[in-house]
Amino acid sequence: MERCSVAANRLLRNHRKRSVLRCLLNPSCTNEFQFFASGFSSSYLLERGHPTPSHPPRDYKSWDFARMGRYAGSTGQNKYRFYSSIPADLKRSLRFSSITSDDIAYFKEILGEKSVIQDEDRLLAANADWMNKYKGSSNLLLQPRSTDEVSKILKYCNSRCLAVVPQGGNTGLVGGSVPVFDEIIVSMASMDKVISFDEVSGILVCEAGCILENLGSFLDTKGFTMPLDLGAKGTCQIGGNVSTNAGGLRLIRYGSLHGTVLGLEAVLANGTVLDMLGTLRKDNTGYDLKHLFIGSEGSLGIVTKVSLLTPPKLASVNLAFLACEDYLSCQKLLMEAKRKLGDILSAFEFLDSNSLDLVLNHLEGVRNPLPPSLHNFYVLIETTGSDESYDKEKLEAFLLGSMQDGLISDGALAQDINQASAFWHIREGIPEALMKAGAVYKYDLSLPVEKMYDLVKEMRIRLGSSANVVGYGHLGDGNLHLNISLPKYDDAVFAQIEPYVYEWTSKHRGSISAEHGMGLMKASKIYYSKAPETVHLMASIKKLVDPNAILNPYKVLPPSLII
Amino acid sequence: MERCSVAANRLLRNHRKRSVLRCLLNPSCTNEFQFFASGFSSSYLLERGHPTPSHPPRDYKSWDFARMGRYAGSTGQNKYRFYSSIPADLKRSLRFSSITSDDIAYFKEILGEKSVIQDEDRLLAANADWMNKYKGSSNLLLQPRSTDEVSKILKYCNSRCLAVVPQGGNTGLVGGSVPVFDEIIVSMASMDKVISFDEVSGILVCEAGCILENLGSFLDTKGFTMPLDLGAKGTCQIGGNVSTNAGGLRLIRYGSLHGTVLGLEAVLANGTVLDMLGTLRKDNTGYDLKHLFIGSEGSLGIVTKVSLLTPPKLASVNLAFLACEDYLSCQKLLMEAKRKLGDILSAFEFLDSNSLDLVLNHLEGVRNPLPPSLHNFYVLIETTGSDESYDKEKLEAFLLGSMQDGLISDGALAQDINQASAFWHIREGIPEALMKAGAVYKYDLSLPVEKMYDLVKEMRIRLGSSANVVGYGHLGDGNLHLNISLPKYDDAVFAQIEPYVYEWTSKHRGSISAEHGMGLMKASKIYYSKAPETVHLMASIKKLVDPNAILNPYKVLPPSLII
Repeated sequence: MERCSVAANRLLRNHRKRSVLRCLLNPSCTNEFQFFASGFSSSYLLERGHPTPSHPPRDYKSWDFARMGRYAGSTGQNKYRFYSSIPADLKRSLRFSSITSDDIAYFKEILGEKSVIQDEDRLLAANADWMNKYKGSSNLLLQPRSTDEVSKILKYCNSRCLAVVPQGGNTGLVGGSVPVFDEIIVSMASMDKVISFDEVSGILVCEAGCILENLGSFLDTKGFTMPLDLGAKGTCQIGGNVSTNAGGLRLIRYGSLHGTVLGLEAVLANGTVLDMLGTLRKDNTGYDLKHLFIGSEGSLGIVTKVSLLTPPKLASVNLAFLACEDYLSCQKLLMEAKRKLGDILSAFEFLDSNSLDLVLNHLEGVRNPLPPSLHNFYVLIETTGSDESYDKEKLEAFLLGSMQDGLISDGALAQDINQASAFWHIREGIPEALMKAGAVYKYDLSLPVEKMYDLVKEMRIRLGSSANVVGYGHLGDGNLHLNISLPKYDDAVFAQIEPYVYEWTSKHRGSISAEHGMGLMKASKIYYSKAPETVHLMASIKKLVDPNAILNPYKVLPPSLII
Repeated sequence: MERCSVAANRLLRNHRKRSVLRCLLNPSCTNEFQFFASGFSSSYLLERGHPTPSHPPRDYKSWDFARMGRYAGSTGQNKYRFYSSIPADLKRSLRFSSITSDDIAYFKEILGEKSVIQDEDRLLAANADWMNKYKGSSNLLLQPRSTDEVSKILKYCNSRCLAVVPQGGNTGLVGGSVPVFDEIIVSMASMDKVISFDEVSGILVCEAGCILENLGSFLDTKGFTMPLDLGAKGTCQIGGNVSTNAGGLRLIRYGSLHGTVLGLEAVLANGTVLDMLGTLRKDNTGYDLKHLFIGSEGSLGIVTKVSLLTPPKLASVNLAFLACEDYLSCQKLLMEAKRKLGDILSAFEFLDSNSLDLVLNHLEGVRNPLPPSLHNFYVLIETTGSDESYDKEKLEAFLLGSMQDGLISDGALAQDINQASAFWHIREGIPEALMKAGAVYKYDLSLPVEKMYDLVKEMRIRLGSSANVVGYGHLGDGNLHLNISLPKYDDAVFAQIEPYVYEWTSKHRGSISAEHGMGLMKASKIYYSKAPETVHLMASIKKLVDPNAILNPYKVLPPSLII
């Protein structure tokens, strides 16, 4: 009881509505609850650091490829072992040509020497994804500086049947942005200019290679904010975000990119430039084709420019790190938060105790904001609003009410930018901690919220002590990141995971890819989430738009339907 | 000054933050401002009446077709005169078969007698749109009760090359939901069941024929609300809303249907049922094909079921009816509202004084909520939030601040449901008032907000005293409804309007269809808003999905590309 009263007194100092705290002073209150003072400027969101995965390791030599259990040949057949979902018998399609010296000469002619990259170190980095889980063997990276150059590249590649993989920040987790074999890498890194920003409407138009965090910083100076935020913001590019329909932390507030992307420019495989770069909130002239390119992972065209609706930056941001004893409490807390904080709720993330333990054990300088009692679940609730005192009061009242109702068993409110950054680092550091812990099988699933955690529990029973099964993710969006961590990749364990995890997801009408895309990892698994008739239509559209199948081959859809 | 002080005192009685009112008591304040007490339950939104256009006139006999200057033949060539955008030389395509007695017999076999409608009165109503502006000459209306029946109908029609027009509530304004010639009308009215509702996630799954208002009432009982609201809610159907990507009054708060529709089921021309009826907030498995059907006006498939994310119903709704002296003030007010009311802003509508005069002159029982001073513009601002006292306080403080800044010259806050309903009726009654005033050329345009009203002014100069040019719409979304009212349709005036209005819109990178769709009216005008390469891809997709072009022919895209 003493801590309960202490916490209440701490809150009272900053609290206008003292009545909501009475519960804490009532002897019948048995919950332990610790609050720090809350309230800090919204700018912390832009200032907070994302050591990883926003800054993925670029020194690939320091990574032990052998330990990852994968061998990548130069061309021909790649052998993937001990990996989650990659078919062992995937072969390079004979329909694609190999690069000749004439091709190189042509590219140098249209792009200049500097944008035609054959340097081994550069290629080594661009051939591997940031987890070093997928690796191709491309010998050529092209770095166009304009839509016209992208168009010329694709027109030529299409005429020569040269396969291409578009690459943004290369922070994806499903092998979508690296070559599978010797595809030409088309990097968008040099197309990184802001084209226009309208301070009346908040509409930003920029090139595809702009880094998400840079766009955020730019908007911050204008009094606006990005509707998208994710751990990889320091490296990922907006074109890649759009092409993979990235979700992230703010989806619960601002919705998906299908809503916030107002327009885009894309180059088709034959070099045709589709100017759909509208800057209008509403446009019902014909079919809204931009949506085909949002989330098609560069397999229908290369996104070269993007027009985005950005919301005004609101003045106050608050962040709470909370403990819940069971998953049902997390669910109820979500429902209550939607109803009571609906106006200002901007994130609702959850992690289980296994996730927290991983972060505490493997990342330096991370500490648990709460006393080291045993809690089963942790929730981060962020609010973003226009009125600091009101927002804080509202969040505090909500938290106290939820504690009274037994939904929260302990909690802390960040008192400044550094504390908020530390809280976020726990959530965002989980992927890095998993990598440091050894091998990891990663699944990004959408499921009905009430079923979501059952899968984690079932996997624990299924795998016993052979693996550490952790669950975390965007509870507010019904998006579970199921991760299975073990010392090294193991075929026997893998056989226990797949196809079971996909079958389970399918049985509960979930999605086997919530926000990460299909990439190479899940291209052949699409039937677990989509009906055959729908997949057939997808394949027909792919053939219509890219008849030679040069764009990002072997990915997104089952290769047998396309190549 | 006296009224100013009186208004301030009235407000003071309900106002907690007295400081914001000081301006009103300051002798330098010269604005007149009248507030009624504010604050009322959110339920008014569901209770308020929409006499029209939610209940369009069904007694077509009372309408003078001859006065509308149009003749509709039985089949063959329809002659459209004095109408805005309909090609006079549009001919029935010879590729389509005509209905035979065998066809009727087949439909009766699969649907039963009652769902095969040849009754003249029923057909008269279904052949004409609610404005009586477009009229076809179909001899057959089919009313399926299930997806399977829709599938059987389309499969048969496709095999026989019988053209089909899908019909929802038939409240569209561009001739998209009525036959052009003798197409078979497929009415979705009998598919009107709610399939499921998840009270945890707020996800509603229902059949396409559900009337929007009925869905709102259903959700109200569950503590949720529809993310879509429009004047025609009493008649329009959710399948039609989705197929036309309807915008409406709440888009500024909840975004477009591309964001809130989680999934749908659609039947293709060949009878294939596409089950994309996901109920997940995030799903990145392959191409997100549902977006092709959102806004394609039934030309790619018939939407049979819809899954929607609905937000929790929030406890407090406030509505203000405000006067502004110039358009720049309206714009500035919008920017301020986004920034200061961003958490709770749920509508920002505007109308000019010509619009208000029309409503006051032609609709019975409508009165101006403000004293009869001359103001040039009027704005409706609605807030929806979770805290009645806070929301009211916030809105009032915002309005007083805006008055101090000279953005608002007068205003009233609705004090109860009836008053709110009366305020909304002014805005929503404009289309009906225009119809009663005589002939009207209607344009639904998206434009950059700062340019939007320039078009109204230019049209006034261009047309002089020959027409009454009015402008109103969804300022928050950059959506202008430009309406040109005159005693009767007039080719000379029409020649002054088109193509000028489209050229002007195109020059300012606007959209010639913001939320109404292309329908028959604008099918051939698409190049004003879309690049030829994009239109070409649209046509290729149409041919891929509907090779016989039986679905809603002559509409959406230029017929020459399709038929």
